Amino acid sequence: MGRVTERRKVIRIRDGRVSTRPDTLVAEEPLEIRLNGKPLAITMRTPGDDFALAAGFLVSEGVLGGADDLQNIVYCAGATADGSNTYNVVDVRTTPGVVLPDITLERNVYTTSSCGLCGKASLDAVRTTARFPIADTPPLRLTPELLSALPDRLREDQRVFDRTGGLHAAALFDEEGQLVDIREDVGRHNAVDKLVGRALQNGDLPLSRSVLMVSGRASFELAQKAVMAGIPMLAAVSAPSSLAVDLAAETGLTLIGFLRGSSMNVYAGEHRVALQAATAVSQQG
Amino acid sequence: MGRVTERRKVIRIRDGRVSTRPDTLVAEEPLEIRLNGKPLAITMRTPGDDFALAAGFLVSEGVLGGADDLQNIVYCAGATADGSNTYNVVDVRTTPGVVLPDITLERNVYTTSSCGLCGKASLDAVRTTARFPIADTPPLRLTPELLSALPDRLREDQRVFDRTGGLHAAALFDEEGQLVDIREDVGRHNAVDKLVGRALQNGDLPLSRSVLMVSGRASFELAQKAVMAGIPMLAAVSAPSSLAVDLAAETGLTLIGFLRGSSMNVYAGEHRVALQAATAVSQQG
Repeated sequence: MGRVTERRKVIRIRDGRVSTRPDTLVAEEPLEIRLNGKPLAITMRTPGDDFALAAGFLVSEGVLGGADDLQNIVYCAGATADGSNTYNVVDVRTTPGVVLPDITLERNVYTTSSCGLCGKASLDAVRTTARFPIADTPPLRLTPELLSALPDRLREDQRVFDRTGGLHAAALFDEEGQLVDIREDVGRHNAVDKLVGRALQNGDLPLSRSVLMVSGRASFELAQKAVMAGIPMLAAVSAPSSLAVDLAAETGLTLIGFLRGSSMNVYAGEHRVALQAATAVSQQG
Repeated sequence: MGRVTERRKVIRIRDGRVSTRPDTLVAEEPLEIRLNGKPLAITMRTPGDDFALAAGFLVSEGVLGGADDLQNIVYCAGATADGSNTYNVVDVRTTPGVVLPDITLERNVYTTSSCGLCGKASLDAVRTTARFPIADTPPLRLTPELLSALPDRLREDQRVFDRTGGLHAAALFDEEGQLVDIREDVGRHNAVDKLVGRALQNGDLPLSRSVLMVSGRASFELAQKAVMAGIPMLAAVSAPSSLAVDLAAETGLTLIGFLRGSSMNVYAGEHRVALQAATAVSQQG
């Protein structure tokens, strides 16, 4: 089975001095995800938590909405010429009776939209496949101070990053700012899928009392994954894209970017950020 | 047609002070790439350079090897209900007589390998679809000093990043360290595809005298794109993955990671790094 890190020889150059030594790298291997025996997708991922990754991917695609939808997940043996198991092919079996949406390919989701293909089609696809509304009652509310503490807590628990510098991290926090779960992967979308899949396996979907924090940027894809898991707040260390902001505004997701030190930008869903009543909101530009 | 950036309202929180203002975000929209009229892939990208993106993607997939293989690229009008053009669907037409590999899906490339699905299968897929060997004769050779200057030159030309903080950049440098071309995109793979596609359109493939520099990590996918374009050297600001290093070692690609200040790690193809003859290589670990 694959490992989270691997060792390779490296030549280090530092201020003109050259040395060779073993280096620890983040492992990357392909994972094929099959749905009821049929190949659905391949992702390049860091081995480990593969069942959670597959389950979370299928939550994002609108196939799985809860633990009851999932019969089991297995590694496919015998995919190789000699019948051995590479641990890089998993088959997700849904519970008999679960209705599968037509998701043979991602592109089919988009191109069924009336607009052909545009940002709006991407937003529509999330709306039509979403299993849960974002329904946090009463609304989740975190203070800026509490939000500002999350990046350091994320960073503290990035164990593989410390050894390799080569991973994206995603974490779930509760409304008190306590770390609930953290996953690392070469692919930022995989890290989120692993979190969501584990939550599904634990019967914790929808994640309506959770904040999803990611180490990098907030793309449309990550916002989509938050929405599909019923997560009301997505916070990112770096910038969001325009389409991520549009999706957040449309679905009610709170989207925070550039969360660094005591600063942050709130792009949508600001009612979940508990600003002090005394703080005047000044208008610029 | 889409724009590279878009404006959205943002609530800024800085040290407890709250203000609202317009913010510039990197634009993200889906692009569907069709090959001779048949849908092949969808990527979430920053609008602009779409024809180059599509052409570069098809170089990476082993479909196109040079400008002669390409008949033309068009935006598909009429994909929408009202017949208008979203500028998010492009059709790449190959020159009659060009033999197309069977790439209906990425997964087909991988699963035809005898090992089922593993890192080795990914390496095999690149070897079997590569149009050019990495053939720089005489070998490209850059000094560590020259390599150390590349990240600053990349950063200087990241114009959209300066406004949004939300983009990956990829650039081609020549063997004198001069910037040849730079592209930015929400997806790092798109930025590389745009570079390679533009080179194809200009008749510059294979890029056998070029260094590809990327702003983030060096994943397998980026190493694959370098190899497929015949680029002999890939340099990254951050860490490579194990599989990127394996691909580099197998194909002869020089792979440099953690290129920061006067430091760098050389993971493969060290013969292209011109170390001073007097510099002793000390052995550690």
